[in-house]
Amino acid sequence: MIGIKSIASYIPAGRIDNIAQAAAFERDEAFVLSKIGTTTLSVKDPAEETSDLCAAAVRNLLDKNPALRLEDVQALIVVTQNGDGEGLPHTSAIAQHKIGLPTQVACFDVSLGCSGFVYGLYAIKGFMEATGLKNGILVTADPYSKIMDRSDRMTSLLFGDAATATWIGEDPVWTLGPARFGTDGSGAEHLIVRNGCFHMNGRQVFNFASLKIIPHMQEVLEEAGLTLDSVDAYCLHQGSGAIVDAIAKRLGANGDRVIKDLFGAGNTVSSTIPLLLERYAFDSAWRNLVMSGFGVGLSWGSAVLLRR
Amino acid sequence: MIGIKSIASYIPAGRIDNIAQAAAFERDEAFVLSKIGTTTLSVKDPAEETSDLCAAAVRNLLDKNPALRLEDVQALIVVTQNGDGEGLPHTSAIAQHKIGLPTQVACFDVSLGCSGFVYGLYAIKGFMEATGLKNGILVTADPYSKIMDRSDRMTSLLFGDAATATWIGEDPVWTLGPARFGTDGSGAEHLIVRNGCFHMNGRQVFNFASLKIIPHMQEVLEEAGLTLDSVDAYCLHQGSGAIVDAIAKRLGANGDRVIKDLFGAGNTVSSTIPLLLERYAFDSAWRNLVMSGFGVGLSWGSAVLLRR
Repeated sequence: MIGIKSIASYIPAGRIDNIAQAAAFERDEAFVLSKIGTTTLSVKDPAEETSDLCAAAVRNLLDKNPALRLEDVQALIVVTQNGDGEGLPHTSAIAQHKIGLPTQVACFDVSLGCSGFVYGLYAIKGFMEATGLKNGILVTADPYSKIMDRSDRMTSLLFGDAATATWIGEDPVWTLGPARFGTDGSGAEHLIVRNGCFHMNGRQVFNFASLKIIPHMQEVLEEAGLTLDSVDAYCLHQGSGAIVDAIAKRLGANGDRVIKDLFGAGNTVSSTIPLLLERYAFDSAWRNLVMSGFGVGLSWGSAVLLRR
Repeated sequence: MIGIKSIASYIPAGRIDNIAQAAAFERDEAFVLSKIGTTTLSVKDPAEETSDLCAAAVRNLLDKNPALRLEDVQALIVVTQNGDGEGLPHTSAIAQHKIGLPTQVACFDVSLGCSGFVYGLYAIKGFMEATGLKNGILVTADPYSKIMDRSDRMTSLLFGDAATATWIGEDPVWTLGPARFGTDGSGAEHLIVRNGCFHMNGRQVFNFASLKIIPHMQEVLEEAGLTLDSVDAYCLHQGSGAIVDAIAKRLGANGDRVIKDLFGAGNTVSSTIPLLLERYAFDSAWRNLVMSGFGVGLSWGSAVLLRR
């Protein structure tokens, strides 16, 4: 039985002052705190490539887990839609070389946005089980600073850069329970890159997430023999402070178990959920948790993790 | 036990005359026949997007298999490095909507080049098994006409556009046997897109493939209890006529079982192997076959398929 053994992350040191940025858009601190949920955004150095973020997160994972040696890593999957250069070759291949992984490693990129960690967990677990691999690393690294239009209030206040690395192997701390997925390409236009800049219809995405995610989590909880009342924690994609608050409010009393933390980094796309797990899940008393990612595609994925 | 139930394809109707193209590069017909292996290259209409190629291949798969209904498809994975637009959102989401698949479908893109079909088979099988899905479609669609520099002899004579769709489900014709994978990002520069154009160091790629692929196939054959002498067929990535011939020659007498067909389309990247399987494997007397894909990354994957 393979599952999640450990998670590490890399948040670049650069910070954007979101209060100052908001002032330029004639928005005040109250707006930043209530709608965005973070007064700073992380931003990578322009010279840092996506593969550098991947390599930094993997090195942090290796430092944290001396039992995981470079030569033991047999799979590296990178979730990104902002890979190195012009996307050919894949970023995971470039990261393989930068990290110094053996050439026997299976590498590929998964193109997904904010739902990417949930999908990616099942993609790497499944790939490893289908091919008999024992140790793999799932990386999320989707630096939106590459595609940010700094004159666009809707997105410029929201997104930050980060990467995470999740060790998948035997004798895990968390096993992967039931999962459900969804895709609605009729909403492709709501989150899209055109002429090198990211555009978002925030209202559409907010409405989609606030309506869709709770019933979707209920489906996987039911399959796991759990309920909205009995699950120990909700680890939602941190799209913004406002969307996390809106879902928590709809959950009523259960909303107290919604974890909210943008880590002074912002919406880090596929990295938000693993950042929550890294910080809050391992040392908790939780026996189970439900997670849900949603965004670009439109795409969504919900799953239950069970402490082993 | 899930595996390959059926394969269909879509080769766009447009054709480039490779003899005429070669003449402009001061190369004759003998060069085209011996080195390239096809006198025509397929090319999509500029108005056709990658998702249109995906949708056409999936429709051909559905037409061929009335038992597979749209509403039964639970996963759609697209292997591409030349997706729609600027790569965000993922092409599989756009294809989901164009095909009319239900929104409960799990969609993601896998970024890989010529090794992509082999990796993709184990990625979709594993993902489906890890999440309990019964029917999925693996699509390959990597139209290099989007990134072709028509003044570059090395690549302009070689690549064609195509898409394939592989139905993965229960009661398969072919089951997935042992597989091995590899990645060497130190060779990332040998196949790369810069300023919108694809560049290839053909000599490096040829040398890599002609040295690496036979021992790699031997590894998976051994794990399957087969040998280079006993396997029924070799379905290699059709990188060029010359590379297929070179590997066949190194195989000695076994080279007779190497399938060579560029389908008047050219090197269609991740579509070459499924095109071979569609045409030659299903109605054959083969009990088993070995396949190997290699290219962009550098990346390679070899696997054995076993008739059920």
